Amino acid sequence: MKAYQPLDRLYVAFWSIIPRMSGNTFGKLFRVTTFGESHGKALGCIIDGCPPQLELSSEDIQLELNRRKPGQSDVTTQRKEDDDVEILSGVFEGKTLGTPISLIIYNKDQKSKDYSNIKDVFRPNHADITYQAKYGHRDYRGGGRSSARETAMRVAAGAIAKKYLNANGIKTEGYVCQIGTIQANSLNLENAKTNKYFFADESKLKDLDSMFADLIKEGNSVGAKLGVRVTNCPVGLGEPVFDKLDADLAKAIMSINAVKSVTIGNVDNILDLKGSELRDEITQEGFKSNNAGGILGGITNGDLIELEFIIKPTSSIKSKAQTINVAGEEVDVEVTGRHDPCVGIRAVPIAEAMVNLVLMDHFLRNQAQCGTIDQLVPFKK
Amino acid sequence: MKAYQPLDRLYVAFWSIIPRMSGNTFGKLFRVTTFGESHGKALGCIIDGCPPQLELSSEDIQLELNRRKPGQSDVTTQRKEDDDVEILSGVFEGKTLGTPISLIIYNKDQKSKDYSNIKDVFRPNHADITYQAKYGHRDYRGGGRSSARETAMRVAAGAIAKKYLNANGIKTEGYVCQIGTIQANSLNLENAKTNKYFFADESKLKDLDSMFADLIKEGNSVGAKLGVRVTNCPVGLGEPVFDKLDADLAKAIMSINAVKSVTIGNVDNILDLKGSELRDEITQEGFKSNNAGGILGGITNGDLIELEFIIKPTSSIKSKAQTINVAGEEVDVEVTGRHDPCVGIRAVPIAEAMVNLVLMDHFLRNQAQCGTIDQLVPFKK
Amino acid sequence: MKAYQPLDRLYVAFWSIIPRMSGNTFGKLFRVTTFGESHGKALGCIIDGCPPQLELSSEDIQLELNRRKPGQSDVTTQRKEDDDVEILSGVFEGKTLGTPISLIIYNKDQKSKDYSNIKDVFRPNHADITYQAKYGHRDYRGGGRSSARETAMRVAAGAIAKKYLNANGIKTEGYVCQIGTIQANSLNLENAKTNKYFFADESKLKDLDSMFADLIKEGNSVGAKLGVRVTNCPVGLGEPVFDKLDADLAKAIMSINAVKSVTIGNVDNILDLKGSELRDEITQEGFKSNNAGGILGGITNGDLIELEFIIKPTSSIKSKAQTINVAGEEVDVEVTGRHDPCVGIRAVPIAEAMVNLVLMDHFLRNQAQCGTIDQLVPFKK
Amino acid sequence: MKAYQPLDRLYVAFWSIIPRMSGNTFGKLFRVTTFGESHGKALGCIIDGCPPQLELSSEDIQLELNRRKPGQSDVTTQRKEDDDVEILSGVFEGKTLGTPISLIIYNKDQKSKDYSNIKDVFRPNHADITYQAKYGHRDYRGGGRSSARETAMRVAAGAIAKKYLNANGIKTEGYVCQIGTIQANSLNLENAKTNKYFFADESKLKDLDSMFADLIKEGNSVGAKLGVRVTNCPVGLGEPVFDKLDADLAKAIMSINAVKSVTIGNVDNILDLKGSELRDEITQEGFKSNNAGGILGGITNGDLIELEFIIKPTSSIKSKAQTINVAGEEVDVEVTGRHDPCVGIRAVPIAEAMVNLVLMDHFLRNQAQCGTIDQLVPFKK
Repeated sequence: MKAYQPLDRLYVAFWSIIPRMSGNTFGKLFRVTTFGESHGKALGCIIDGCPPQLELSSEDIQLELNRRKPGQSDVTTQRKEDDDVEILSGVFEGKTLGTPISLIIYNKDQKSKDYSNIKDVFRPNHADITYQAKYGHRDYRGGGRSSARETAMRVAAGAIAKKYLNANGIKTEGYVCQIGTIQANSLNLENAKTNKYFFADESKLKDLDSMFADLIKEGNSVGAKLGVRVTNCPVGLGEPVFDKLDADLAKAIMSINAVKSVTIGNVDNILDLKGSELRDEITQEGFKSNNAGGILGGITNGDLIELEFIIKPTSSIKSKAQTINVAGEEVDVEVTGRHDPCVGIRAVPIAEAMVNLVLMDHFLRNQAQCGTIDQLVPFKK
Repeated sequence: MKAYQPLDRLYVAFWSIIPRMSGNTFGKLFRVTTFGESHGKALGCIIDGCPPQLELSSEDIQLELNRRKPGQSDVTTQRKEDDDVEILSGVFEGKTLGTPISLIIYNKDQKSKDYSNIKDVFRPNHADITYQAKYGHRDYRGGGRSSARETAMRVAAGAIAKKYLNANGIKTEGYVCQIGTIQANSLNLENAKTNKYFFADESKLKDLDSMFADLIKEGNSVGAKLGVRVTNCPVGLGEPVFDKLDADLAKAIMSINAVKSVTIGNVDNILDLKGSELRDEITQEGFKSNNAGGILGGITNGDLIELEFIIKPTSSIKSKAQTINVAGEEVDVEVTGRHDPCVGIRAVPIAEAMVNLVLMDHFLRNQAQCGTIDQLVPFKK
Repeated sequence: MKAYQPLDRLYVAFWSIIPRMSGNTFGKLFRVTTFGESHGKALGCIIDGCPPQLELSSEDIQLELNRRKPGQSDVTTQRKEDDDVEILSGVFEGKTLGTPISLIIYNKDQKSKDYSNIKDVFRPNHADITYQAKYGHRDYRGGGRSSARETAMRVAAGAIAKKYLNANGIKTEGYVCQIGTIQANSLNLENAKTNKYFFADESKLKDLDSMFADLIKEGNSVGAKLGVRVTNCPVGLGEPVFDKLDADLAKAIMSINAVKSVTIGNVDNILDLKGSELRDEITQEGFKSNNAGGILGGITNGDLIELEFIIKPTSSIKSKAQTINVAGEEVDVEVTGRHDPCVGIRAVPIAEAMVNLVLMDHFLRNQAQCGTIDQLVPFKK
Repeated sequence: MKAYQPLDRLYVAFWSIIPRMSGNTFGKLFRVTTFGESHGKALGCIIDGCPPQLELSSEDIQLELNRRKPGQSDVTTQRKEDDDVEILSGVFEGKTLGTPISLIIYNKDQKSKDYSNIKDVFRPNHADITYQAKYGHRDYRGGGRSSARETAMRVAAGAIAKKYLNANGIKTEGYVCQIGTIQANSLNLENAKTNKYFFADESKLKDLDSMFADLIKEGNSVGAKLGVRVTNCPVGLGEPVFDKLDADLAKAIMSINAVKSVTIGNVDNILDLKGSELRDEITQEGFKSNNAGGILGGITNGDLIELEFIIKPTSSIKSKAQTINVAGEEVDVEVTGRHDPCVGIRAVPIAEAMVNLVLMDHFLRNQAQCGTIDQLVPFKK
């Protein structure tokens, strides 16, 4: 045996100071691994662990992608993203095989755009500076991996989870309840499906039109508050201690670009009320109230799951901003092009997808109890 | 070969409808696995992945446990929990070996208390009903695994992470900023270390004394708002996409019993301000503001990490409540004994521990870049 | 914000060159995490993911530990290990809760033995030198974490898996079929349960007695060949591609100290025969032969699972050996005390335990199919 | 709240008896997830966790794929697989980004071949029957996911690991040392790179030519024995207890289709020799022998890593065989087309790839010690 060679080791040392990344998988049993830079060749994912014999076609997935797609109305970015999804594996004769399902969306319009204005500059409120710091090498075109374009694959994978959950009677619905300072007076989830703001109160549509017109003119942006509700979720999903269902939902939602806050259940007046007022008493017909938001001790109690979250204003806005470049020099940066005045709007299908991924994973983790679950909570039918 | 026997399979089928649980591990590289029921023989944990050669004694851990321990003041439960921790492995001659560190706390006072009043009854706002539904068998004594007593091991494991992070200059500090309707006017983290409410504004102590006296008399409870700040965190911690640092922090905090909301950075007026007002511009000296809360694109930017969260009022309160029992009959339940009027108070060391566990794990995941990190963000020193 | 401080980072750099370890967990859904140094305070483990409602007592576990325990006959080490196991959590009123099960064995006889002769010396064939290289700090007493004493917890955890599998009709049996040059002429698994060598051919017991008498006198050691068979394993366990059942079995067995070889099915004459002779043809009654060893494409086919493995001779032997010490000086080392002339003997219950852990994990991974599995392979009953 | 609906639950119960699969990811930090059926649209993988700034082009990967590709000589199958690999993400301007690297190979020649002869029949020695049993739905075209075509992605991912390891001086070389009954008299690794059998002893080439001519004429197959050697591997790779390097290597190799046996180090005469003869004594220049095969206690000791494994004869052979069909009827099956007389030949690049994936993963797990490793083993340079 030859002894270890110190010269080689220096080379090792050189490599060893470079970081690595492995946060691109979500879920324990229904595992989604995504790839793709905003302006690279393609975006895609592999879903491992999907049950076999589920009917699935690319249309099921395309339908959800179309809800997320930009350029669909005058209030979102006019960028065209042809999100045509293709299934490459895991489905045979219209049904899943139990083997990995691979999805791909090619980036068709990779124009040789001029990126010289942002190539070496860190756009404020963007991840340019942190990616540069972490990896020392980044794809500056459209934000690369840090672009919200990455969420297309969350929606695509979520569509498969949705198909499975729907078949089991579980329904997940998202909505926007506040954009900037305009709040919904009441929540109408059907409203949220029909207007271009996904807004749960149609009485505010005119106010919104007016606000968006101003924002577009100004080249500015606002934040938004959104929510997701799950109906008919079985009792018993979620694991005690660290993998509580609410903990996994919080992670799932907070992992969406620009989300800054997640709440479960009734939080609005939780500091104004006392324990005696907030506890959900139990009758033979079920819970008398649902301050808990459908989760007790990290486990679903069969009631409506309710969560809300806040998204910060779009980072890419027209007005000039102060920043530095990779050389450490102070420079001004101006982001050109047309951007969403409120990224929150397009987050509804993304949040629904993330909730479905969490439920699907916990459904599989908990699967075996399903056959007898109707005896487990002694509510009167 | 004999063919498969259908009779045996019925037995398999019987077992297969019973669920299983595996949410008791936290972290990818600094892995903490905990065990223990509230009134079982012991609580404990195994920490796998701790770097070797870290100086560590049981006193380091006991110190943090004492901050969490109930019965220390007149405003927390008077229950005595002798949380004497012992290190069983992984430390030799005062330093970690790199092998698993096992910690144990024996439950000394396991009195044969009479639990007949809650044995078959689901206490509202507790996990009794969901554990029963999920497992069909539960330890009803003091809530079993769903008891907040489980958090002792989070604090113990967090103490090891803290020791390592402190050695690297990273400091994590928690505080309470609102209890019921009483809010801190300003945040003084030193205040939070010296009063029994962990409250960040000592001008409110008299108001708090008065409120707690009333709550104790009434046998009622209130919620609280808390926060954690991390100083001197290196740039580059956190992984893009799903394992963003803020996503993992949200999960860590939301997994603490009774937490209903988590926010990162400035959320208070995020819906009132526009993108142009909220973006943190960058100068040669660093960021001009910190609305982002120290994280951009899921990766630390070197600025102060700021998070806040809300805890619901204590579930165990004196006043009688309506519920059902395991037979499905409607009954009243009364929780006896002395409980915390606000569990939020004791959550400060727990939240600090969870934040430290997240940072430690991401520190290891990102470790290799540390040696050169000072060149990676071109700020002037 | 203050810029990053290069001085602190040097400290970070110091820590970052120290490795970390996290290989102490086995299994994906039935997860066993072990801890403990040979001469530390205790050995223990946490089993997360065990189904609830399984009847379990410490006697179930003790029974298996006693089969592994040294000092039981004149052909194993005379060291006394009082492997009294205690269940600390996860079992209530005689049945598992679904929460983590913690097991502990205290090392009762931690005498202040003199270790000065091996403290700084690397025993050949032992892991002393590699632990020192990897961690820079090691517990030299009895090999610390690298001691075969660690396998006690494999056996303990395996006993729980065994209880569950047995209830489902699955039976795992180990045996020794060769010790040194003495081979079993035929395999009698009942023989293997009754003699002190776990030997599957009692006609060789006199030869073995004679060989062991010589080895003990000489202070030398020999290797052994062992096997494990699983009867009545359901069809369908194992995952395609990387997590094939045979791949996971190979890892499980190879992870046992001193194992150097693993084979699945008929390997003895596999290079002498052709494809036409080795393929297992299929009839309505099942497979006509079992060269595959019960696994096809990584998935069980319902036939007998057969594996064999080879263990090297005990490393600790009396005769003086050449080595170096931590200072790099060449020295002789002599291992004192009485050691097993063949560690292979005691590996039977350990290998059975590892096989049971693999089967249990894959059983849970595959659980849902159990209810209908009898229709899935169209063999005549 | 509405109580749980038993009718919906039946639907749940229906789904819950269907299994799921999630064994398509390899590695903890350098994580490879593969997808693809033999005759589906494409094969591909995502590699998450690759260090950034590694120079990488599709040519690096194509080179290794070409070594595995069938149809290259008269002794392998004449099937044409145009394994043209494309990098879809994770590489920018010729260097890795630290983000997921996605690779894809399209299956160009998906002819509408007639599969009616094997559609409903279980080919002996193939995974047809176990896939059918496990999933109840399978892609029968060319074996679907169970085809050895899946190994293309192992080779592709391994090529990236190889590039990184080579840059650190680590070299992995495979060879064939026995085909059927023809053994290499001595091992010449350079020989193995130049002949079409990858055979390590060129003196046997004529014998091999003659044997293969016979096999092709006969439509029969034989098994093979192969080996892999790793030169210049750093000390300290591997984790104690379950994730020993040898355990992970055994799993990696055994997960390759048709492998039935794995050995580490010198196993040939391990039962003939005594402990005193097999221990590798240590001098200032290193180990005096290498019976251990470069690994002690699961951790590399810096010496040559040596492993060998046995592959069974090709399952697809011309001669008619007895089997059953999905209806349980006894039928004969004949596999048409030209197949490899010995699949073992093409396994050399696959085994090298798997070894490189294991080393890469453990390199990252152990990375931090690299900078100082030259001081950790006190051998004379």
